[in-house]
Formats: sequence, C-alpha cells, structure tokens
Amino acid sequence: MTDEHQSVFEHTDIGDTDTTHGRTVTEADVTNFAGVSGDFNHLHTDEERMADSMFGERIAHGMFVLSAATGLLWQTRTPEEREAVVAFYGIDNLRFRQPVYIGDTIHVETEVVDTEAKPDGPGNGTVTTAIEVVNQRDQTVISCEMTSLLR
Amino acid sequence: MTDEHQSVFEHTDIGDTDTTHGRTVTEADVTNFAGVSGDFNHLHTDEERMADSMFGERIAHGMFVLSAATGLLWQTRTPEEREAVVAFYGIDNLRFRQPVYIGDTIHVETEVVDTEAKPDGPGNGTVTTAIEVVNQRDQTVISCEMTSLLR
Repeated sequence: MTDEHQSVFEHTDIGDTDTTHGRTVTEADVTNFAGVSGDFNHLHTDEERMADSMFGERIAHGMFVLSAATGLLWQTRTPEEREAVVAFYGIDNLRFRQPVYIGDTIHVETEVVDTEAKPDGPGNGTVTTAIEVVNQRDQTVISCEMTSLLR
Repeated sequence: MTDEHQSVFEHTDIGDTDTTHGRTVTEADVTNFAGVSGDFNHLHTDEERMADSMFGERIAHGMFVLSAATGLLWQTRTPEEREAVVAFYGIDNLRFRQPVYIGDTIHVETEVVDTEAKPDGPGNGTVTTAIEVVNQRDQTVISCEMTSLLR
C-alpha cells in the first residue's frame, strides 16, 4: 500500500455519509445481552409483567441497541477502514429516543461532522460522526456523536 | 408502601454518591460480547496479532465495559430504586480513558450532579449522575454522565 492509501483520516471529510446493513433484534439478543451485561431489569426480562406495561411487551436494552450499532458500523467498514481505527475516544449527546422491540430491524446512518488533525500521536486525527440508529418504521431510536482516532 | 416511599426522585439529592461491587472481566465476557454485538475487531478477538501491538494482548470492547457498568449499577440498586426507573434518557461526555484487559476487575463510582422535577410526565423527575468506571489499579477507565427519569 502507498502512504496515500494508508491514511484513511486524510480521505475523511465533513459531510461524508454512510448507511449500514440492517439487523433484526431477536429474543436471543435480549436474553444474551442480559447475561453478558448483568442487567436483568424487568423491562428486558419479564414478559408477563411487561404485558401490563405501557410498552405491552419486553423492550431491548438501550445499551444492547448501542452495542449492536457499533457491530453494524464495524461490519460496514472496508478492511482498510478497520485497520485505520486506533482508538474509540468517546460518545457525546447520546439520547435513547424510542424503544426497540423484539422483531424490530435496525440500521445505522452516519455523517461526519468534525475532523481534527493530530499528527503527533499514534494516529493522524480524530473524526466525529453523527450517528442515528433507525428502525424499520424510519424512527430514530438512538442519536449520538462518536469520536474515534484514525490513522 | 406510602407515597413518600414511592418517590425515589424526591429522596435523590445532588452530591449523593454510591459505589457498586466489582466485576472481573473474563475472556468469556469479551468473546460473548463480540458475538452479541457483532464487533469482531482484532483488538478484541485476535490474541496473536495483539501480542505485537502497543497493548500486548486483547482488550475488552469499550462498549462491553460500559454495558457491564450498567449491569453493576442495576445490581446495586435496591428493589425500590429498581422500580423507580421509568426510562434511561441518555449519556453525555463519555470518554474511554484507559484500556481494560482480560483479568481486570472494574467497579462503578457515582455522584448525582443534577436533578430536575418533571411532575407532568410518567415520572417525577430526571436525575443526572456522574459515572466513573474504575479498575483495580484505581484508574478511571470510562467517565460519563447518565440521565434517567425516575418516579
């Protein structure tokens, strides 16, 4: 590879957009996430009780939906883009906007909103991306900004 | 229960602190989280490659550590406090500050930094809590603020 190809940061511009493929949230996902996270809130684990709630059924953990979003983003990256990620810096302004039900299908829509060169560190610069996790009814279920350090 | 006991929000004050018990991050956690999230980045899944990296070994997904933190917070709540949570609103100013290695033991330290009465909705008010996820070397590995709507 040339140096040009090795710097994904240099080829990332404000306004760049991307869309991931979808993922259907299954009962197994919610059950597995409860076990992995240790969050057994009845919202996610008690079908009988949730039948009488405002939701009418169990909803997915917000943190599961966010975790699945990072998986979709990773799967959508090219091999070159995957190599370029040095570190996940942080998340800002995250809002859980809508519940996600078992059977819903989510995808992620992204837009680069800021870039900052950092040539003196282990990467070339930070990229901040506005993230929307969207369900099959075109509702945004999570919005946030994610910042990563890229080569 | 009396009305007084039913409003956890009314009994939550700025400056209130809490500390969860600990959780050791295991290889099974990292493997299971890769499967649940769909994020198979080599940082978390390729022991051979990571042996040659700046980390020297696999590190846990930042999103796993954050998910485990929500589990620790849930487990630390009293039954009354668990019932009081109406919704998880959002996360602000999240920073992944240090890597978490397999074998590290994390816990969560919390301090209430803002409360806002919202008597006209499904809860009594929002509570914003400064969260620090801390490892066994007293290093903060994640910091953020979480906001929830409480009864």
